[in-house]
Amino acid sequence: MQDRHSLDKAQQPASIDDMEPEAFRAYAHQVVDWIADYLSNAESYPVLAQTAPGDIRRVLPAQAPAQPASMSNILEDFERVIMPGITHWNVPGFLAYFANTASGPGILGEMLTGALNVNAMLWRTSPAATELEQVTLDWLRQMLGLPDPLFGVINDTASSGVLYALAAAREALPLHIRKDGMAGRKDVPRLRYYASQEAHSSVEKAGIVLGIGQSGLRKIGIDDQFRMDAAQLEKAIRQDIAEGWQPFAVVATIGTTSTTSIDPVPSIASICERYGLWLHVDGAYGGSAAVDPEMQWVLAGCERADSLILNPHKWLFTPMDCSVLYTRKPDVVKAAFSLVPEYLRNTESVGDEVPNLMDYGTSLGRRFRSLKLWMILRYFGQQGLAARIREHIRLAQLFAHRVDDSPHFERMAPTPFSTVCFRAHPQGIDDEQHLEALNERIMSNINEAGRFFLSHTKLYGHFTMRVAIGNLRTSEQHLSALWDDLQTLLATHLNT
Amino acid sequence: MQDRHSLDKAQQPASIDDMEPEAFRAYAHQVVDWIADYLSNAESYPVLAQTAPGDIRRVLPAQAPAQPASMSNILEDFERVIMPGITHWNVPGFLAYFANTASGPGILGEMLTGALNVNAMLWRTSPAATELEQVTLDWLRQMLGLPDPLFGVINDTASSGVLYALAAAREALPLHIRKDGMAGRKDVPRLRYYASQEAHSSVEKAGIVLGIGQSGLRKIGIDDQFRMDAAQLEKAIRQDIAEGWQPFAVVATIGTTSTTSIDPVPSIASICERYGLWLHVDGAYGGSAAVDPEMQWVLAGCERADSLILNPHKWLFTPMDCSVLYTRKPDVVKAAFSLVPEYLRNTESVGDEVPNLMDYGTSLGRRFRSLKLWMILRYFGQQGLAARIREHIRLAQLFAHRVDDSPHFERMAPTPFSTVCFRAHPQGIDDEQHLEALNERIMSNINEAGRFFLSHTKLYGHFTMRVAIGNLRTSEQHLSALWDDLQTLLATHLNT
Repeated sequence: MQDRHSLDKAQQPASIDDMEPEAFRAYAHQVVDWIADYLSNAESYPVLAQTAPGDIRRVLPAQAPAQPASMSNILEDFERVIMPGITHWNVPGFLAYFANTASGPGILGEMLTGALNVNAMLWRTSPAATELEQVTLDWLRQMLGLPDPLFGVINDTASSGVLYALAAAREALPLHIRKDGMAGRKDVPRLRYYASQEAHSSVEKAGIVLGIGQSGLRKIGIDDQFRMDAAQLEKAIRQDIAEGWQPFAVVATIGTTSTTSIDPVPSIASICERYGLWLHVDGAYGGSAAVDPEMQWVLAGCERADSLILNPHKWLFTPMDCSVLYTRKPDVVKAAFSLVPEYLRNTESVGDEVPNLMDYGTSLGRRFRSLKLWMILRYFGQQGLAARIREHIRLAQLFAHRVDDSPHFERMAPTPFSTVCFRAHPQGIDDEQHLEALNERIMSNINEAGRFFLSHTKLYGHFTMRVAIGNLRTSEQHLSALWDDLQTLLATHLNT
Repeated sequence: MQDRHSLDKAQQPASIDDMEPEAFRAYAHQVVDWIADYLSNAESYPVLAQTAPGDIRRVLPAQAPAQPASMSNILEDFERVIMPGITHWNVPGFLAYFANTASGPGILGEMLTGALNVNAMLWRTSPAATELEQVTLDWLRQMLGLPDPLFGVINDTASSGVLYALAAAREALPLHIRKDGMAGRKDVPRLRYYASQEAHSSVEKAGIVLGIGQSGLRKIGIDDQFRMDAAQLEKAIRQDIAEGWQPFAVVATIGTTSTTSIDPVPSIASICERYGLWLHVDGAYGGSAAVDPEMQWVLAGCERADSLILNPHKWLFTPMDCSVLYTRKPDVVKAAFSLVPEYLRNTESVGDEVPNLMDYGTSLGRRFRSLKLWMILRYFGQQGLAARIREHIRLAQLFAHRVDDSPHFERMAPTPFSTVCFRAHPQGIDDEQHLEALNERIMSNINEAGRFFLSHTKLYGHFTMRVAIGNLRTSEQHLSALWDDLQTLLATHLNT
């Protein structure tokens, strides 16, 4: 960044102050101009960083800095050294994984959060942070069309959320596992929980951490639309019970990571009710679509779930990280996690009116994440959020139609949200190894060209490209250009 | 905030764009000015929010916003509604818990992190984020005087870090717990880990989550300086082994939360080596002191630890959140956590040169936290960081001497770092109930007055105030003023 302020009093070794507020002001204005320019010109960077492993590391000094550096130098190095190794998530050409947006109001929220540096662990450590978290999550609940009461708490990621939900499910068993654990106990049976084979890896990871183990997760088969087969689920539960397992939870997904399929939550909820199992719904990606009233059908059955996750940092234009865990059983979550040492005990009583949010998970330190979410919900409003969600879905449907109409490409899964799974499959080529190599090459070419970044999955064992639309600046023009690139690359590969 | 830009095109419901970059530029400049003013004038706010439970909630609309609001309105409401409910962490009068600083360079880092919105889960999802994390943590390792090689990874909090460390310790047992869990297994003995009774609550919480249970944590007694009694530790381990428990880990603390005591890590390390136990060191607060070469003695023995945490967001002037987990056994941590679904598999090989940092914990989404840490390490340099740490320790020693020299106050614990534990104990008053009430009242009065925020602990069952110095703007003058306030309040209470 160009230094326009010349406020560069390099720190003296003897200095014991923070950066002077006026120096901060000058540099922060400079950074703001850089960010605004970046948001305007982000398409000038290759989306996927074009660096080889170790390239960035090699440019950085191996030795720790002994002396202070000037902020001008640091910002210059940020541009010169760091930026070439950035994969650009906040740009319209990012179509990998689940694309997202650090929206303008969200970035403003992050700026204030960074400066206030509030820890929302106890109510008293910032009443506004705790109360705003409760209010914004109740607003979001209303927008999603979910019934009151529903307790909400913000975590970093859905990986944490599902861990907390399954810990609560485990605690709900009459086995006092919180106190006595599971190791070496004759009175604790083997524990089982269930998710479809398309569930996110964090569901399995949660079981590993909880000491349930990978074999404690039984993966249920799917139908031809990648949705959990509820009949298979019930059969598995019955079989496990007969064999002495103790089932305790089911994880259903609204918008699976590979194909964005939607598990049949109403049927799964009935099974959970029948067998007394905790129902957790992972709507990390797909749940957000329900802010559009026309899409609220995707949450059908979620009013019967014990817990539900959705990630504003995925599809509600919120900067990383911001994942919402809703639960109808906050007392159980609290029973699983609350542990209040003397140094965190309130000397004032806060009564039952306000929670201490540290009681609902492992992380004691909690950033003031509700501030950015509040600013986003207000700036866009439900109507604005819904219009953007609808537009992303419209763009995905358009792209899906192009694929369907092409003799050279095929769609690999339904497209209920804004993510299209497809591959090149030219007429006359049916050798799967050939097709795999062809599609891998096409995707690599796209990513190396730098204009777009796609990621892949495997469906029925076949290499499948994904176009995930979630960035607010992604337009119909971008997707037309991508489509043209795909055609050109396919033709090139077929002619060589 | 005063709207100086009049760029307020209120979003139309039909709009599908993000905030325009030029509007973002204008509002972000406005927010920067607000932050710079805040940092200059932060002492005009009461440190501990003076609101009652529900006060903020009641001012916020209960109904979700349907229509977009203008950013001017939102920023006005931020000042009018949110600010009165903020407990001000980033101000010189914050002396509670462990005081910290969102330093100027750290806030600038947060601004860039928010705008780039990078997810550092895989190397390819931003090579610079992964490589910068590795380089900055190696710089920090050098600053701390710890031997190479040492693998580092940044988590949100030390609560996550200790969970990951103990999960790795559990995985190091030849019991394939990752795969088969612990429930209902006859071949898994009861598991035990150890920490002093002064260890942080997150150590116990990690055991709850891991399914070890609270009774799986054996709390070891302390000496008269609140340090773990290593002889008791070894005795407990022997006893547990004799009774059929399987010990697997010990958590030692450098800078306990109540008194900042330092467990005897070298002796504990010897015991861990003797019994084959994983040694985790919680240096979340105290570890950072070792950036001052004169303080590196506090890390004695840590070169023998399997894992070590320190939190730059505690005492290295880094905005929340930023907690470093170092380990000498990254392969074990990875074995405990790595789970790579197809959609996260790299199509390019990255070789062994660079890690995918998602493999070392539960959270898949990972903010670009190394950026702020890099900016801070460079802006202050080791010499600058050390000078500030030394100053905080000097201020704490001065305050401790005032307490020691006073006939009306007494120090309740040694002061190895920058946190002073003390209470009022006027000559002639020895009734403990009276003293407890007196000290609670004095602390409440201080906190209500708004100039300072103190928190408490209990030592030997006695209510104890803590003065924790960690904000870069806290000066000798502030602490003199606090001391005067304490004298005045004591006199007032003794005269009524």
